[in-house]
Amino acid sequence: MTNSQFEYVRKFELPDMCLPNCWPIVRIDGKNFHKFSHKHEFEKPNDARALKLMSRAAQEVMNGMVDVVLAYGQSDEYSFVFKKSTTSFNRRASKLSSLVVSQFASAYVFHWKSFFPDKELLYPPAFDARTVLYPSDKNLRDYLSWRQVDCHINNLQNTTFWALVHSGLTPTDAQERLKGTLASDKNEILFAQFGINYNNLEQIFRKGTVVIRDKKKPQTFQPAATAGEAKENKRTERGKKQIPTPLLELHVDVIKDEFWKIYPHLLDP
Amino acid sequence: MTNSQFEYVRKFELPDMCLPNCWPIVRIDGKNFHKFSHKHEFEKPNDARALKLMSRAAQEVMNGMVDVVLAYGQSDEYSFVFKKSTTSFNRRASKLSSLVVSQFASAYVFHWKSFFPDKELLYPPAFDARTVLYPSDKNLRDYLSWRQVDCHINNLQNTTFWALVHSGLTPTDAQERLKGTLASDKNEILFAQFGINYNNLEQIFRKGTVVIRDKKKPQTFQPAATAGEAKENKRTERGKKQIPTPLLELHVDVIKDEFWKIYPHLLDP
Amino acid sequence: MTNSQFEYVRKFELPDMCLPNCWPIVRIDGKNFHKFSHKHEFEKPNDARALKLMSRAAQEVMNGMVDVVLAYGQSDEYSFVFKKSTTSFNRRASKLSSLVVSQFASAYVFHWKSFFPDKELLYPPAFDARTVLYPSDKNLRDYLSWRQVDCHINNLQNTTFWALVHSGLTPTDAQERLKGTLASDKNEILFAQFGINYNNLEQIFRKGTVVIRDKKKPQTFQPAATAGEAKENKRTERGKKQIPTPLLELHVDVIKDEFWKIYPHLLDP
Amino acid sequence: MTNSQFEYVRKFELPDMCLPNCWPIVRIDGKNFHKFSHKHEFEKPNDARALKLMSRAAQEVMNGMVDVVLAYGQSDEYSFVFKKSTTSFNRRASKLSSLVVSQFASAYVFHWKSFFPDKELLYPPAFDARTVLYPSDKNLRDYLSWRQVDCHINNLQNTTFWALVHSGLTPTDAQERLKGTLASDKNEILFAQFGINYNNLEQIFRKGTVVIRDKKKPQTFQPAATAGEAKENKRTERGKKQIPTPLLELHVDVIKDEFWKIYPHLLDP
Repeated sequence: MTNSQFEYVRKFELPDMCLPNCWPIVRIDGKNFHKFSHKHEFEKPNDARALKLMSRAAQEVMNGMVDVVLAYGQSDEYSFVFKKSTTSFNRRASKLSSLVVSQFASAYVFHWKSFFPDKELLYPPAFDARTVLYPSDKNLRDYLSWRQVDCHINNLQNTTFWALVHSGLTPTDAQERLKGTLASDKNEILFAQFGINYNNLEQIFRKGTVVIRDKKKPQTFQPAATAGEAKENKRTERGKKQIPTPLLELHVDVIKDEFWKIYPHLLDP
Repeated sequence: MTNSQFEYVRKFELPDMCLPNCWPIVRIDGKNFHKFSHKHEFEKPNDARALKLMSRAAQEVMNGMVDVVLAYGQSDEYSFVFKKSTTSFNRRASKLSSLVVSQFASAYVFHWKSFFPDKELLYPPAFDARTVLYPSDKNLRDYLSWRQVDCHINNLQNTTFWALVHSGLTPTDAQERLKGTLASDKNEILFAQFGINYNNLEQIFRKGTVVIRDKKKPQTFQPAATAGEAKENKRTERGKKQIPTPLLELHVDVIKDEFWKIYPHLLDP
Repeated sequence: MTNSQFEYVRKFELPDMCLPNCWPIVRIDGKNFHKFSHKHEFEKPNDARALKLMSRAAQEVMNGMVDVVLAYGQSDEYSFVFKKSTTSFNRRASKLSSLVVSQFASAYVFHWKSFFPDKELLYPPAFDARTVLYPSDKNLRDYLSWRQVDCHINNLQNTTFWALVHSGLTPTDAQERLKGTLASDKNEILFAQFGINYNNLEQIFRKGTVVIRDKKKPQTFQPAATAGEAKENKRTERGKKQIPTPLLELHVDVIKDEFWKIYPHLLDP
Repeated sequence: MTNSQFEYVRKFELPDMCLPNCWPIVRIDGKNFHKFSHKHEFEKPNDARALKLMSRAAQEVMNGMVDVVLAYGQSDEYSFVFKKSTTSFNRRASKLSSLVVSQFASAYVFHWKSFFPDKELLYPPAFDARTVLYPSDKNLRDYLSWRQVDCHINNLQNTTFWALVHSGLTPTDAQERLKGTLASDKNEILFAQFGINYNNLEQIFRKGTVVIRDKKKPQTFQPAATAGEAKENKRTERGKKQIPTPLLELHVDVIKDEFWKIYPHLLDP
């Protein structure tokens, strides 16, 4: 039995190389996470454990794919920015997105118990992924700004909604109360009715999470190495040993220039 | 803070719809599974537990994606055949492959302990994935034949190699011994030297695993429902309740016509 | 001066190979031909000279590209069907469409004077083109049926419209008269008011034009060879001499089975 | 007869929009122009009439497609640079390349007699085309530099080769004489043996041709308007009347910064 008469089917796999000199970004999104978060009784409006588990999974991705220079996450989504000049997997879009999303999903399940020690994972979640290309640094920054503004808008909405619900309103009434309100109205409701100053809420909820490799600063976050993992980190994709750059987990503004001035190597490695 | 000035970045995500009237196949492959199997001390040449875990993860995929009509797996790879006319996720190639591969990876970790109760999972594995289109039924069958012949060739090679190694040869010597041998030579080595009749080896090793939805036959395999899972199975992607078609796990020849005569609904739903 | 520092720009040209085992069809369409036909005073509703010039240009394409098995044209459009297994230009979609459309356009201008000896070509026209893939023979036939039904619908509409205009109605009034009419109404107007039996109109207007290579029948149409052209025809793309198969120009139904029974080699070369 | 049962075939035409914020370049190349130039007895090493006809055709393209900001041509090829932000034809790659290449080819035939009044066009030529995207201004400039260096290398080679042939060497001997020679060797052969100072040769041969729209300078080149053409120029694709910007035909260096400083609007419209 040989394979010669069937091997022609290989030719149906067509190339999908990313255009050179563009920033490849892989964004992953939880599939049906509304239900997933409900089943697992995530705290509302934000569950810090769930967000930290997402970031832990993101770090697993970054440990395995050295050309990811930055990851940004909020809610049930995470974006992974590959360096513009990456040649990982010959820049094949499907390789980049599938390896990112499968590593993310398997790490999410693997680390679940560290973040939810008292809660059983009921079923394994899925995530979708896509690779998108951004030609200029401005496009890249605008992409990240888009996701961070989205985080802010959703968080302000959710925070106000759940404050109303926790105060006794039905979800329908809370929805009704918020219909047509502007950001300023929501801030006012939070402050006047619940004594909450939105700007004092935790940064992780308002800004999301940025993970970068800090080449200059001391390591501020190092997840406890899981069995066998410490050794993994020391090898690049090509098998050469190297000391992994420590990962920094930040909850900061990425819209204004300041962040990019502190970490200029992100745009110009 | 509004998103209006950043939302233009959405337009960089380009459509990637699969050509209509073709069979979309998503094939996933373990990343660095040579090392993964070594670290986890998989039995050689085949570890039945590892293969069954792969199939368990494949079934999780099929339970979540009702348009997968058949899956075929061997070694550290699995192929998922979507029905030709599927409109799932608007036939977007990246959606199909990312949801398959992330569900597979998360399920692999989730079900690990059921198949390796005595062995800790050391780190979460990754898989790559691609979507390939096959226009005709013959192309589809040839694709599956290609994978099954590949299974056979590798298994005969590995079985002979490990028989030699287990008999005392070094891996290098075993490699040397097999250099240039034909299938008939390997069969002969197995039989003459080790009393092994290759054709009597377990079908799962020689044929790999086919998973289909059996619409006519009684259910022969039903994995123990994990917590929360039973209920999940009852809902399609669109949220309508339905009784899931039981999944059949087979270790049979898919190259000859017989299989396709028994299950004609696979090609003509 | 060497090119070494600039040659990297080649890598930005990405592959665009057609999926194997599909019928590639290149359809070209006249750009702004409403104006073009007005400027050149084409006869209404149909100008036989213009249609024949289109077909002459299509034959130039078929003489230069031996893997085009059939072309179908009507109005200011022409579709070129490449054989399913073509490897011309490595099946690169942009090569197929650009060579077809540029050869068509240059031939249109080149042969203009043979079809419009008394009318000067005022400016060189442009055509757009796209390559579309059809996986099955049924899809291919349905594509051609789609174009032929379109020919019929437009021709019935235009014939009735211009009969009304030629009888003295303003274009606006003619438009108004036809608003909401069915095919049967138009047939009735033509017959009752103008004594025209639509089914007796010339086939070229009602059916469009099919060009094929007839391998069995005697040649019924051979355009007068232009200077230098006769010799060209004898060479394939790869430079081997060959006697070109004569081209047949037909005005027949391609929707029903009959056509495909007479010329079975078209679908099964 | 309606089209409803066939119209599904439209869905097989997949979108091919160019990534935003990239420079789309359509490059066209003559098909079999070695033979074409031989048949039409083009002067060697360069035929000024043929080069000027190419540029005339390029201008026809630019007159019809207002978003082409620059065209560069040499030998039998021409590149058309669309503005980065163009939304012409929804940035569909196949539309851009097919309209450019068909307009170019039809104009080439249309204007032949103006440039070769004494030589009959023997057959209509074809051109291939592709759309390539360049993300940054540097990439765009490097692309044009790549083509202009290519022009220089080929021209120096051809000039020396034909000087040798015209002096009596057979083509084979001339080829042999040039084997392994560097640019400096060729310059030396030209000067020592034929008294030719390469740098004194006409710019059009050494630099190729750049066509731009000059928004500041007086018009230096205006092709004689062909019948009906003058009026055409006054209309944009969308039909609004406008005075066309005059086209400038230049034979200058586009590699160094100077050109880009004189015409800064090319990169920053």
